[in-house]
Amino acid sequence: MSTRNPSIGLELARLESHLANTFSPDVRAYQRFAGIIGDRPSQYAKSPSLWNAAFTALGLNAMFLPLDVDQPKLPDVVRVLRASERLLGFSVTVPYKVSILPLLDEVEEKASRIGAVNTVARMADGRLVGYNTDGSGFLASLTAPVVDRPLCDGSIAGMDVLLIGAGGAARAVAFFLADQIAPGRLFLANRTDAAGQDVARAVNAAYGNAIAVGEEQIGELAGRVGLIVNGSTKGQAGLRRLADERVVMLEPYSALAPATPAPVPAGLDPASDEARRRWFEASRPDIEQNNRRSLEIAAHAPAATAAYDLVYAPTETVFLRHLRYSGHRTANGKGMNIAQAVDAFCDRVCAEYLRDSGFEATAVRRRVTEEMSRVW
Amino acid sequence: MSTRNPSIGLELARLESHLANTFSPDVRAYQRFAGIIGDRPSQYAKSPSLWNAAFTALGLNAMFLPLDVDQPKLPDVVRVLRASERLLGFSVTVPYKVSILPLLDEVEEKASRIGAVNTVARMADGRLVGYNTDGSGFLASLTAPVVDRPLCDGSIAGMDVLLIGAGGAARAVAFFLADQIAPGRLFLANRTDAAGQDVARAVNAAYGNAIAVGEEQIGELAGRVGLIVNGSTKGQAGLRRLADERVVMLEPYSALAPATPAPVPAGLDPASDEARRRWFEASRPDIEQNNRRSLEIAAHAPAATAAYDLVYAPTETVFLRHLRYSGHRTANGKGMNIAQAVDAFCDRVCAEYLRDSGFEATAVRRRVTEEMSRVW
Repeated sequence: MSTRNPSIGLELARLESHLANTFSPDVRAYQRFAGIIGDRPSQYAKSPSLWNAAFTALGLNAMFLPLDVDQPKLPDVVRVLRASERLLGFSVTVPYKVSILPLLDEVEEKASRIGAVNTVARMADGRLVGYNTDGSGFLASLTAPVVDRPLCDGSIAGMDVLLIGAGGAARAVAFFLADQIAPGRLFLANRTDAAGQDVARAVNAAYGNAIAVGEEQIGELAGRVGLIVNGSTKGQAGLRRLADERVVMLEPYSALAPATPAPVPAGLDPASDEARRRWFEASRPDIEQNNRRSLEIAAHAPAATAAYDLVYAPTETVFLRHLRYSGHRTANGKGMNIAQAVDAFCDRVCAEYLRDSGFEATAVRRRVTEEMSRVW
Repeated sequence: MSTRNPSIGLELARLESHLANTFSPDVRAYQRFAGIIGDRPSQYAKSPSLWNAAFTALGLNAMFLPLDVDQPKLPDVVRVLRASERLLGFSVTVPYKVSILPLLDEVEEKASRIGAVNTVARMADGRLVGYNTDGSGFLASLTAPVVDRPLCDGSIAGMDVLLIGAGGAARAVAFFLADQIAPGRLFLANRTDAAGQDVARAVNAAYGNAIAVGEEQIGELAGRVGLIVNGSTKGQAGLRRLADERVVMLEPYSALAPATPAPVPAGLDPASDEARRRWFEASRPDIEQNNRRSLEIAAHAPAATAAYDLVYAPTETVFLRHLRYSGHRTANGKGMNIAQAVDAFCDRVCAEYLRDSGFEATAVRRRVTEEMSRVW
């Protein structure tokens, strides 16, 4: 791994030809690479700065690239990645955490049960193996210090938990939570009942303690669980295209109550102030109703109930704010995000590379955690 | 100024004997000092880290100390400070911005009109001269880049402005704003009409364009001004003791509508989760009503109306959030706070010290701004 191989330029050019973004010329100077596959990770993903800080701190001759992939190009991108001996592995983000599965050579059992992969390691023989580090990152940051004091002080075994949402990250968290809290029950509340029931069925096949509930039960359940987790996108900044193609903004909403926002008006740039303005005016009564119900539920949740939000932008969602106002312990998704990146880096994608480079597992893990937290 | 004079230990010990806090032993190694006088600046003031970063970056042998002063000790502290040749000057914060005035030897005209001093420089002959840099800092950050893009792109002359609040910082901002926007009008809306009218009278004596209004007029005025400024403590984090001795939390409130929070329950530690919880439950209907009205006003303010909040903790108050949701440009008080510290450092407290140390005015100002922004 000591001499520079000129062919990396060619390999990256081949990769670039299937991407919606391009690389800066200086990335060709590195010997190894990793990356993140998503719709437009170059525009929002935190992982490039986290991983590159770790590579730099460890003095490794490697870099991490955002790979913007349009749906039809996904198989081509995976094929080029598999062929590259310089590839360490890659992260997977929306919308490919599920559709990547059939393109991999092997999927770890837990990731396979979850039905979603967020981390892929390339083996020496070119096989691509998929993992899911979202759930382990969540658990790590929930019960042990990652960047801050953990939300829960001791074991969560036996605790009843309410998890809101049934998307990719929520699904991963559901499996790890169900395993950890048993014989405690995991209540899964989702906007569309079918998706919640689907996750509950899958979790129950492994652990038997999940119960799908409707959003209308959140209020009552919040009054008798030890932990409420928001795994939905309610409260998240930015625009969101729903399954039915409506573009909405969910930031002003709390996960504790239903949200039926108006669509962003057609014919306007959805990112413009005018679009935001008109969307807000149309959604205001719904936002008010959601917030009123959320405040009420937060006020009546037992004092010991903690609240965790997988969302980290904004730093504090409406859900967390209302629970903090009412005297509860709260944490956002920063700790989970860093912990899952550390797991992916140390245990999956770079595990062999780190060993070959002479790093000791515990020390390198501590160093990577520190660096990733520093640049967050 | 090059040799270390052992007497500084004695000077600081004399000062410490009148304070509610103590200094760490290592501050005795410095030759010059400045500080901030307030009730408990050691617990919340940002200025020590800002000023000390600037001193360090410039290689100056000086430090900045938080001075926790109980009301009866204020004259003693000022007397000791005046006697110290090592003193450069000091900042003044709540609750002493007004009560410091009679203890000074001279007060600059604008600060005297404002009736509040936030900066005191010690002259070579020991005279203490008071200034107010709050208003100039506000204007600087409103129309020129300090840490971010300024909120207003061009001149604000002729613009009508709505300023909410009539406390210390609001009063300083009112004078500078009225001067700058003339012939535009400055509408001053305050919870208690008398305080608002008092500021309007003082501003009118100098500029003639201030109009005191009641809080109930905020909605209508927000619909026809170019800029809305929150100078009240609504939206600010932390506990607040009102004039009538009630302890309340104002963070969940928007400055766009009245707030009548319940008092924090007597007999409980106001900082405890239980106090917050009970306070929140008692105040919830009022918070809901305030937020509902705020959302409505924000939705109907003209698109071009900008919003500025002097509060910077939390980063985004309810007032700013509602205006951002509705598509308006917003800024918090960070820029003002840094700009006023830069003004105090470069133009008042350390002006002579910087000249004597061979620093060029423009270059040192840029450097101080950068350092203070970096450590914020």
